[in-house]
Formats: sequence, C-alpha cells, structure tokens
Amino acid sequence: MKKELKIIGKPTPKLDARIKVSGEAVYGNDITLPNMLHGAILRTKYPVAKIESIDVSKAAQLPGVVCIITADDVDTNNISYLNDHPVLKKGEVNCIRDEIAAVAAETREIAQKALTLIDVKYKVKEGIFDPFEALKEDAPIINKFAPANNDKNIAHPFHYEHGNLQEQKDRSACIVKKRYNLPRVTHCCMGTCAVTADYSKMENRLTLYSQTQMPFLYQRDMAYTLKMEPSRIRIIQPIIGGGFGSKLDMYPYEPICALLAMKAGQPVQIAYDREEEFLASPTRQTMVIDISSGADKNGKFTFREVKIIMDNGAYTSWGATTPFVMMQTFSSLYQLPACLFEAYAVYTNNPYAGSFRGYGNPQATFAVERSIDLLAEELGMDKAEIRLLNANFKGEITGQRLEFISCGHRDALEMVIDKSGFDGKHCSTGVSQATQQNMKNSRSDTLVACGMSLKYESSSDKSVASTIFQRNSERYKRGIGLASMVHVGGGAKIYPSDGCGTTVKLDNFGYLTIITGSSEIGQGSETVLGMIASEELGIDMKNIRVINTDTDVKPWDVGVHASRTSFVAGNSLLGAVKKLKNKLSSKAVQLLETDIEDLEYENGLIKSRKTGESIKTDKVVREIHFREPNELCEESYYYEPDSKFQDKGFKGNVSGTYAFAAQAIEVEVDTYTGNVRVLDVHVAQDVGKVLNPLGLEGQIEGGVVTGMGYALTEELIIEKGMVLNPSFHDYKLPTAGDVPDIHFYPIETNDPKGPYGAKGVGEAPLIPTAPAIANAVSDAIGIKIDDLPITPEKVLKALKERIV
Amino acid sequence: MKKELKIIGKPTPKLDARIKVSGEAVYGNDITLPNMLHGAILRTKYPVAKIESIDVSKAAQLPGVVCIITADDVDTNNISYLNDHPVLKKGEVNCIRDEIAAVAAETREIAQKALTLIDVKYKVKEGIFDPFEALKEDAPIINKFAPANNDKNIAHPFHYEHGNLQEQKDRSACIVKKRYNLPRVTHCCMGTCAVTADYSKMENRLTLYSQTQMPFLYQRDMAYTLKMEPSRIRIIQPIIGGGFGSKLDMYPYEPICALLAMKAGQPVQIAYDREEEFLASPTRQTMVIDISSGADKNGKFTFREVKIIMDNGAYTSWGATTPFVMMQTFSSLYQLPACLFEAYAVYTNNPYAGSFRGYGNPQATFAVERSIDLLAEELGMDKAEIRLLNANFKGEITGQRLEFISCGHRDALEMVIDKSGFDGKHCSTGVSQATQQNMKNSRSDTLVACGMSLKYESSSDKSVASTIFQRNSERYKRGIGLASMVHVGGGAKIYPSDGCGTTVKLDNFGYLTIITGSSEIGQGSETVLGMIASEELGIDMKNIRVINTDTDVKPWDVGVHASRTSFVAGNSLLGAVKKLKNKLSSKAVQLLETDIEDLEYENGLIKSRKTGESIKTDKVVREIHFREPNELCEESYYYEPDSKFQDKGFKGNVSGTYAFAAQAIEVEVDTYTGNVRVLDVHVAQDVGKVLNPLGLEGQIEGGVVTGMGYALTEELIIEKGMVLNPSFHDYKLPTAGDVPDIHFYPIETNDPKGPYGAKGVGEAPLIPTAPAIANAVSDAIGIKIDDLPITPEKVLKALKERIV
Repeated sequence: MKKELKIIGKPTPKLDARIKVSGEAVYGNDITLPNMLHGAILRTKYPVAKIESIDVSKAAQLPGVVCIITADDVDTNNISYLNDHPVLKKGEVNCIRDEIAAVAAETREIAQKALTLIDVKYKVKEGIFDPFEALKEDAPIINKFAPANNDKNIAHPFHYEHGNLQEQKDRSACIVKKRYNLPRVTHCCMGTCAVTADYSKMENRLTLYSQTQMPFLYQRDMAYTLKMEPSRIRIIQPIIGGGFGSKLDMYPYEPICALLAMKAGQPVQIAYDREEEFLASPTRQTMVIDISSGADKNGKFTFREVKIIMDNGAYTSWGATTPFVMMQTFSSLYQLPACLFEAYAVYTNNPYAGSFRGYGNPQATFAVERSIDLLAEELGMDKAEIRLLNANFKGEITGQRLEFISCGHRDALEMVIDKSGFDGKHCSTGVSQATQQNMKNSRSDTLVACGMSLKYESSSDKSVASTIFQRNSERYKRGIGLASMVHVGGGAKIYPSDGCGTTVKLDNFGYLTIITGSSEIGQGSETVLGMIASEELGIDMKNIRVINTDTDVKPWDVGVHASRTSFVAGNSLLGAVKKLKNKLSSKAVQLLETDIEDLEYENGLIKSRKTGESIKTDKVVREIHFREPNELCEESYYYEPDSKFQDKGFKGNVSGTYAFAAQAIEVEVDTYTGNVRVLDVHVAQDVGKVLNPLGLEGQIEGGVVTGMGYALTEELIIEKGMVLNPSFHDYKLPTAGDVPDIHFYPIETNDPKGPYGAKGVGEAPLIPTAPAIANAVSDAIGIKIDDLPITPEKVLKALKERIV
Repeated sequence: MKKELKIIGKPTPKLDARIKVSGEAVYGNDITLPNMLHGAILRTKYPVAKIESIDVSKAAQLPGVVCIITADDVDTNNISYLNDHPVLKKGEVNCIRDEIAAVAAETREIAQKALTLIDVKYKVKEGIFDPFEALKEDAPIINKFAPANNDKNIAHPFHYEHGNLQEQKDRSACIVKKRYNLPRVTHCCMGTCAVTADYSKMENRLTLYSQTQMPFLYQRDMAYTLKMEPSRIRIIQPIIGGGFGSKLDMYPYEPICALLAMKAGQPVQIAYDREEEFLASPTRQTMVIDISSGADKNGKFTFREVKIIMDNGAYTSWGATTPFVMMQTFSSLYQLPACLFEAYAVYTNNPYAGSFRGYGNPQATFAVERSIDLLAEELGMDKAEIRLLNANFKGEITGQRLEFISCGHRDALEMVIDKSGFDGKHCSTGVSQATQQNMKNSRSDTLVACGMSLKYESSSDKSVASTIFQRNSERYKRGIGLASMVHVGGGAKIYPSDGCGTTVKLDNFGYLTIITGSSEIGQGSETVLGMIASEELGIDMKNIRVINTDTDVKPWDVGVHASRTSFVAGNSLLGAVKKLKNKLSSKAVQLLETDIEDLEYENGLIKSRKTGESIKTDKVVREIHFREPNELCEESYYYEPDSKFQDKGFKGNVSGTYAFAAQAIEVEVDTYTGNVRVLDVHVAQDVGKVLNPLGLEGQIEGGVVTGMGYALTEELIIEKGMVLNPSFHDYKLPTAGDVPDIHFYPIETNDPKGPYGAKGVGEAPLIPTAPAIANAVSDAIGIKIDDLPITPEKVLKALKERIV
C-alpha cells in the first residue's frame, strides 16, 4: 500500500462485542412485539406415512389458542429452489421434519400443549433411507414435486469435465481409487431458529424479524411462497446467534409463522428449542464420494475422476448445489490436467441438507487430500513434496477457468510444513516418527515464534506436554497430516448480481453512519467495514455506526455467502467513501487554502501536509451543509465484482478472487481407547491482507474447531429417517477443553482486487482440517481413514483388524 | 404546467389512512419494548414554593418500583433555547408543572402509586401571575436562570421597525388604538405526550421513541441536556396522534424518561393521561397586544405601532419567539408604509407556552384584522373595500423585505367576498343586514356552486336552515366578518439550514421507497410526497412507501415547522426523482431505441412517444442493476430553499415563499343566551397549486375548527398558577356537531419555486378564523370584541352594557 495504515491490520474488538457479552444484544428469540403470540409446529410422528386425517378441534378449544392452520387453510407455492417442498404437508409425509399443522397461542406453553391435542391419523409406510436404494429401477418416487426432467429420484445432477481424461489416465504412473463416506453434521448455532412475523392487513405488508443471511433473496422467496409482491415484505435482521450457512435458505417454519400472523391478525413468533433445532434445522450434505486420482512418475497429478452420490433427503435445499463448489476443488485444487466430475443429489426419506460453511468443500477437500496422501505413499514420495510440486500458482488459469490473480497456495504449504516441523515428524510408511521425536523440541518453543498463535498458550501447557512425554509411547501414537484448500475469496456469481450497495452519512457532529447491504452474522464484517471507513476518513471507531438489518432501508446485496462480505461490501464501502472524501476535500481545500493532494484525514481532522493547518472534519461537514453547496455529506456506491457466470459446462471465473490455505495438524492417538487428541494445528491461509487480526483469528479458530468436530466427533445420526441424537448430550460438539493450540500464519498476497488487498476468509479455515486430521491419524497408526467422524470405535476397529 | 398532471391535484387518500382507522397504527403510547418499565413524574403541589425536603424512601420500598430520581441524582444541562429550565427542579418550584421527582416501575399503576408515597416538604410562597406585575420595579426575579443581559423578568425582548412612523402618523386621517387580550389555549392532541427511552450502557447509545416533529434538533437538544454526543442518540418517531406545533420543543418529561432508563438499565415509557396533558403540555402564547393603526383619508393604511406583553410563564419555550412570526403580520399583512413593533416575553409563575400552529399569527392577525374593521368603521368605508385597497400584491417587497414572488391575497379576498355575498350582508354601522336578508338565498344554493365544499352538505342541512328561518329574528342576529392573513409558505430560515434531504430507492420489482428527512405529523406530507413520486415516475401509489421516522436512517431535515414540508420536502424529492429518472432514462433510451425527450413514465412503464414502444420500469431497474452499469436505482438530493436569515433588525426574505388567505364567516348570535353559532365559513387560500385536494381540505377544515375554538370556546383557565379546567369536560373543544359548512376555494398562484407551484398550507387556515368570527359577531350585534374567546357570558355582558 502507498501509505502506512493506521487501523487496518491492527487488532480491533468487534463493534458488537460489548453488547453481546453483556447480554444487551437482542437476538431473534428476544424480539417482543405488542400483542405477540407464540407459534408451534406439529411435525409428523413417522418419517413416511399417509395422513388419513387431522383433527384440530380439541386443540382449538384450548384456552389461549388463537388459531391453527393446516395445509387446507393456506394457499402457498412450494419452497426450495426446485420448488419441491410444500410449506405444510398434505395427504402424505416423507420426512421426520414434515410440518403438518401449526398453532398460534398466547404463550409458548399453550402452543406446545395444543400440539399434543391435535389428532392425526397416520398410515405408516416403508421409506427409503439410502440414496443407492432410491436410485434403483424399482424404487418408488419419493418427491412428487421433483423436477420432471430429471431421472427418477435424482433432484439435481451435475456433470463437469476438463482435459483429456483417458490420455491422463494412460500417462499416470499411479492411480488411487477410493470411496469416502462423509457424515451428516449440523451447524449447532447457539441461537436456535427463530422468526417473528407481523402482518398489516390494512397495508398488506408483512414484516419479518428473520435470521436470514440473504435478506433480499429471502424477501423474494417468501413473496413467491406466500403469493405476495416481494416489495410488500420487509425483512428485519435481529442479531444472529450463529449462521454458518444455515440461514442461506428459507425453511417452512418461516412462511408458517407468517401465515399464522396473517390468520391471527397479531404478530407471531416461532422459536425452536434445542431438540427441534437438531431435528428441523439443516445439516451439511452427506455424501459418498468415489474418486480415482492419478499422478505421473514424478508425482505430477494427472487426473481426477469423481462420482458423488448425495443424500438429498425428502426435499431440496441448497445442500444439493454443493457440487458447484466441490467441482472447483476437484478441478482446480493443485494443478490438474484432466477432471471428470459427476454428482447426483438423490431423494430419500431422510431430513434434507442445507448449506454449511465450506459448502461441499470440506467433503471434496477430504477426498482430494486423503487421495494425495495415498498417491504419495504409492509413489513413495514425500507428502509435503508432492503437494508443493503440484501447488497452484499466481497467474494460473485452471481447467475450470478459475483465474488465480493472486495465490498463496505454495506459500501456505511451505509455511505450515516449516512451522509444524512436518519434515521431521511424518512418516509415509505408516509408522510415525513423531512419537520418536525428542519432546524437548516442545510445542511452546515453536509457539514463541508465532506472534498470532499465543492465545491458547498457558502455563499448564508445558506440564501437559511433560505428562504426555512420560506416557507410555507404545500406547500413544503421534502423527502429523497435511492438507490444503482452494475456495472462492471474492464472492461467487450465482445470481445476476453478486454486488453490494453502501451509503455513508457523515453527520454534522462528525459521526459516520454506514448503511450497507451486507449482513453481519457474527463474522465481524461490521467491524471490518468500520475499520475501512475509519482508515480512510480518520474517524475514530467509536464514532462509526453500521446499519445493516432492514431491507426497507439498506441497499441491495446478494447476501452472506461465498466468503464475500469483506471483499464485496468492503469494496462497495470504499467506493462510497471515495465519493464522500471528494466532497469533503473540495470544501477542505477552500477552507485550508491548500491542494487536494496535500490533504490527510486523521483523528477527526482534515490536515494539509503542506501548510500544517488542519480543520475538524465535522466543521467541514457543517460548512458543506450550512453554506454553499448546501448539501449533506451522504454518498452511495454499488460495487459489482467482475466475476462471471459460469457457462453450461460450469466453466468461468466465478469469483472476484480465490483464497488458499494449508494446515498441518499433529495428533496423538490413544491406541487403548481409540481416542484421537489434536495437539497442534498449524494454519497458513492466503487472506490477501489482514484487515482485523482479532476477527481473523476468531474466524480461523472457529473454523478449525468446526473442522475438528467434523473430523472426530460430530454426526447427526439418522436411522430409518429418525434423528437419534437431537441433543448436546448425544451430539458431540467440541467444547473449549477440546481446543488445541492453533498457530495461525496469515499469508498476505495483496490481492489486486480486494480492499487493501484482502480476500475472503470465512469458510476456508475449516476446509482442510478434517483431511489433515485424517492424514495425521493415518500417519500415527497406519490405518486408512475413509469415513468421518474418526470415532474411537472406528479407530479401535481398524487397529484390531490390522492386528488380526 | 407543461403537461397534464395525472395524480397531482386529484383527491388521494392518505397513505396511513387505513392503518389509522383500523387501529393498526402504532402510536407512541402503543410502543412496547422487552422489559419495559413505566415512568411517572411527581410535580409540585404548589406553583411557587421552597422545597425543604424530598423523601423517596417509602416509595422506593413499594414492590415493583425499580428506581426513583430527583434533581440530586442527575447531572443535566438546563433545557429551552434560553437555557433557563432545569429538567428536575431543586430547592424551589416556580410553576405548577414543575417536575421534582420521577419513578420507574413495573407497571403504570405502581409508578403512580409510588408518587403518592414520595414525601415532599414545601414552604409555600407568593407567586406572580400577571406579566405586568412581573415587570414592576420591585418584583422579585422569577427565573434565576434567565438571560443575564435582559431586563429583569423579561425573557426575550423584540424590537422591529420600518418606515417613518411619525410621518405616517402625521398623514393619517384616522388612527385606531386598541388593546386586545388573547387567551391561553392548548393543542388538545388526541394522542397524549408519550416517550419511550431505551439506553444501551454498553454502547452508550440512547434510542428515544419520541413524538418530536423536529427529530434532528431534538437529538441535538437532548444531547446537550443529557451531556451526551448528539450522534449517540437515535430518535424514532412513532405515529403521532396530533402535533400542531406542540412537539416542536423538548420538554422535561423526555430527558426524565431517558434518565430513568439509564438508571434502571431497562427501557422506560412515560405517557401522560389527559389531565397531565392539560397540565403539563404546552399552550399557545397568551398575550396583551396594544396596537395603534392608521389609515389616510382614502383608506390606505399608514402605520401600525404595536407593543405586546406576553406571559412567558416560569420558563421559556418556543412561545416566546412567536414575535418572529407576528412581526411579519404587523409589518407586511396589507401594504404598510411604517411599522414599529415591540414584544416582551415576561416571566410569571404560570405554566409556559410553546409553539402552536400559526405561531403567534392568530394573535397578530386578530389584532390587525379587528383594527381594520374599526378603521373602516371610523372612515365609513366598506370593510371589503378597505382590504382590497390595501391587499398585498405579486412582486411586492415589504418593509420587512419579505418578497412576494407569488401572491393570491387580493384574489382570496375577492373570492370570499363574492362567494359569501359579503357585500349584501355586512353592515359597517353595527346593525347587520344579514338578519334582514331573504333566507331563500339559502346556504345550500351557495354550496352547489363550490365543488370542494360539499362534504358537510347533508339532507338535514336544509331543514336546519328552514328552522333557523322560522326563528325569532329579534332573538337571533346574524353578522358576517372578513379577515385575511399572510404566513410563510416555504419554510422559515431560523436555523443554518432550512433544507431537507431525500433518498429514493426503486427496487427490482418496481416498488419505490422514499426516505425523506421530513416528518409526518398528520399533515399528510407522506401522501403528497408519494403523489409527487407517482406523478413523475408513473408508479402507482400502492407501490410507493415513505420512510421518515428514524434519525439513523433518514437524511437531515430541520423539522416540521413553518408550513414547509410539502414545499421543502417536495422540492427535495423532485431533485432526487430527477436524478433517478436520468438514470432510468439513460437505460430506457438504449432498450427502446428512442430519444430521451420522447420518454414518458406512466402506469409502471417507460414509453417512447415516438415509437409507441414501452418497457416495464422494473425491467429497466433490473437491466441497470444486473447489467452495465451494474448500479442500484437509488439517488439522493438535498434541497435548500433560497430563503435568508433575517438581519439584526429582523429584515430579510425569511421564507421560500408566502401564503395568503382570506375568510368570510357568517355567524348567528343568540341574544338571549349569548351563544355564537358559526353558520358558513368561506375560505380562500393561496395554496400555490393544489397537490392533494383531500389532504388540503383536511388541513382547511381542521384549521378552521381550531380557529373557531380559539374564537369562541377554548381557554385553559389558570388562576394563581393553578390549571382549573384540565379535562374535556371543562375545556371546551369544538366537536363534530359544532362544525359549520366550510366552503373552500383554493387560489392557485403557481408559485415559481414551489413543487408544481405549491406553497405551504398547514398553518394558514386557522389564522384568519378568529378575527373573521369576531368581526362577524361585531357586525351582528354591534359590540366591540377585544378579547377571546367570545363566550356567551362575554356577549351577554356586552349586550347588557350597551343596553344599559
């Protein structure tokens, strides 16, 4: 950058940190409106059944019940991008989530009680819970609203290819063919799903206090579902207790809440409890990945051939479209001459998957990075070397035509290889050198070298290390694994615009309001926007406010997806700020009798470097407002990234830029219990440029821990369509005690398009974690890890089978 | 206008009409926030006293009481523009409204109960309740915070003059000298005062749900009072149940509510009941006007010499500044060679006055127009003729340097003289011709001629007329009176900016959002803004929404005062719409392959007059958003009227334009009871251009009825500082049954600066009503009316004295 940055790159607490930790923050579940009722949803008792009758008469008589709706009472379009999902189900149910009636009552307790009084007669039917079964010739049609042009029970097929597959196969010295099973995990947002609907009959106007992360597309979807005009729906976004992609789609409870409010003539709130959250909120897409991958005798990758069967569940949500992202990894993570990719989202009677941070990429990267370890082992190559040999590079245009205008892939790999001591630790033969290693080369020595990684360092660490050292080295086996990833880092062109609008208002007292189309879902984007404005305008962060929660007020934005917010909203803000500065500077040069190029914005002042004179910025605002030209200091800008729609073959430069990361993770496997303990996580990520180190660390740490849960402990267990573990007792989310040392090394590639050179960072950090852990476990105990999560049970079973 | 208007000038229901009549509207008193407490204020028991002690201990122990504050608990600056008004009073009280403690409790009832448990020891003192007493040499200082540079007990002195007074006196053929007493009336808003405060300690941020009609100045005043930064205060304006100027200032209950919320750590609402509303909400400025006015032998006015003593009450609010407006009337209503004007707001121990629709002009116009009748009588001139002779004219620059770029004064006078049949009815000798007049020339015949005046026409009208005809003509005396007025019609430059900002957003579905700085306080400005946008953009009113209630969101505007909103906000909107149309048209000419001057916006379409082709406007928006130039259809504009600050002598063109009106009112006096019945009201008003006939009629009717109440029935009676009639039983507001036929004749002078030629209309219609009625009563029964209200008691007394 041409000048020294004053706040960008400096650790800055989140703008909403204080209200969140103090309990002042108003989350969706906290919304209270005058005369508000509470809604509750009756879901089917059986995953697959014919509904013979629904009798709500008893429930309706319960004092405090205001209204009850079933499919017969409403006139709605189906939801989902495939239009295959009725809001309220009629005649039949196909999934344990199915909504068949809803109640609005004066209290939550009355509403719940009323549900128990609704009498439903079911005729239970056999279901299909395995997508391979659903693909069979004689399988019945599961979703009668499925797209007519697709094959039976296939919701969404994908086909992608580049290069000459056969030629690349022919020249491969080694081909590895594997099947990987990726489990169903869920977002576990601390704030459960909640929506509050307020309908004005007189104005035919619906206000929804919704947790959506895509307010403008949600508005459109809601309108379609309710058969309203989109502009008659106002979306207000309360503070979100976790998004992670789960709020990308609209789900039946949301139009149901609106329908209850319309019928009741009073506002209605529906808020899930934790059990309902596990049962009815979306999951990561579960899938079976068959992958063949090859390398030539030098270790250069030749091809990947991939076929994926995804369990779509009974209806379609965004999970079905994860192949859009996965094909980027299969086609373009490491240089690759040829790729054939097919994926099928297949209906079953299971709950349906939604979008989840990483959007298919954790699954794809798992398959690619596990296969790379296997290729290296087959070729007898070093696992670091094979990756460095094939790493992506700046200026690369991949087979899919992704354009890597900046690329820290190799740097990230080299960083974690170096910092983790990978070369001295890993073992391609399946017997880890790490366990042999002198423990005096202790973690804390490594830690000192890494300024940003000291957060989890504590005095207890060294004693833990000593204890481990004294353990029976026969019992505890250490291993280290490596993985990397590519992900969109500047949005993704999936809608006619991937842009964002911003308005900046500088008031007569020097206080800046940023009205941004973008949404804050905990990722810290508000804070980054505030920092950008502070940097450019020299206004203290405490005098900057971000408004971003009301579709009536804020300019359009496509929503929070594809790690785009800092990149797209940041560039949009920079555009608006530039216009504002032009206006301020024009007046300031008059007042300071100086030249525009001599102006500097700092500490609430506009200064002339030439004359040394300065003037308070708010004074300049008032001069503009109260004298010629009599204008407000308000400016707007819309930023559209130059990304392109992909063609029918899914080729094209879909993102403004791309992020890269590598992780090296060291684990210790307890061969007696099968338990895997993550020791050190080394994360190097091409973030373009560090904007807010604090926020970035939070993203990295959160991502890694999410990846660890995916790797080791988490699975939403569904059997015959029933959710077996809908609670935090049985669904094993990592907790604070499980969090290892996370050493983070940002790679600054100064992206030419990103704000200050930054690129998207949100999704990346969880993506390589599971394959790196799997590779480390494999390294430690020499077993093949093809499935997640790597539970103690699976480890013990594998160890036992190897011994046998 | 160059083209035919499609919606401007057509009767259009208010945008908020449906929610208001259906009860959906959320007024300030309806606001409910999570954990909200209810506040109540303890006011002094005696108007003037020393406070010896305040013991809140018993009150604090009442279950449900959360906090109590007295002056000792808070650190505030004084309020009022003279900084003479402590929020909570300490040591002494000077007025029956004085706030000495406040409670926040879980319910309104508990808060009220707690007030009764606060033990205050008073030492009662003598007060001064007459401003003339307060001016005496030996009077004690009433307000110890009064401006130091003013004479004792004078809060605000005014001095204005133009012309050579002595010369004009010398050439006067006739001089009339009178003293007029103008009473204390109050706004009687149907929605009582209410404010809700929500304070975030973590963000040091205060949100006020306030009824203010000046949100940005209120924000600044509140900040000063609470010693906060203005930008940390957000004002949200719920729907207002009546403003009429009463919400121009900030009053102690508002910072008190904020202080309670800050101390309690919970939101607090304070809402007055009707009695508290009468006691503690502002009034119209009461005053004694001494006026000498002269005319030459031809009836040309020569001078006015005016001295006004205003009862300022114990503290100062905007009522003290009404001389700013009054001097316009004294100096510039009718052509006038010389004027000397002095006014003094004098402290007393009475409740203080605020601003009220008309802002002193009803008082001033009463004095001027009553005096004109007297001059005419003295000169033996026709009362219509003398007015027409002296009427203001287009192009006139008055002694005060007001510039009448358009002027319908004479037209308005001629219209009401003609339509009322004034010439045949009135009698300069004090014996009305009207009572002699043939009743067959009935009201309903007159009515048919006036298209816009038929609302109150009903079948019962004619039978009423017949009944009246049959009454004893000895008992019932009829008279007719004439009065006119001038008032600012394009805002008033009383603050460094009198401007308004507007942002227009046209969304992808063709729905327009207008974000305006201006506020809706029932005057229908939202609707007029919607109509302007609809007219210009060809978008149906139902697809237009106005956002105008949030200082965080809306652009700056000085507030609702000086009949400025349609003029200033309308021009601001036109500026923003013009920019929006430029953007739309640039794209439309490409899509329609036509020229920009051929485009027409109509019915949601942009049409080419040349080719006959058209395209949907929302399609054009999407083309702009989703293709080059990839922009949103959002534009902003700030309009600053070219009005000027007045100089130290109060001279200068303070408003963008000026409105004129004349009324002729016929009354019938029951000489047995003294009751005055208003029969017909003929209103001609220079509105520049009719924008919304429905809204305009509402303004006219409301204004006239307010003027009638001022003339005949309303008075807030204060004796020794105590309010004697704080209820609608005892305070006689006109009700529906009192409303006469109101015949309205808009005068369209097509102001060159106004939107479509329009000028401000809001305050004008009440201004000439009281003098016209007084003149009519005088005409009917030959008594002099020098005081308002003209109660039956006063009429009977005057009749009796005349007989005696």
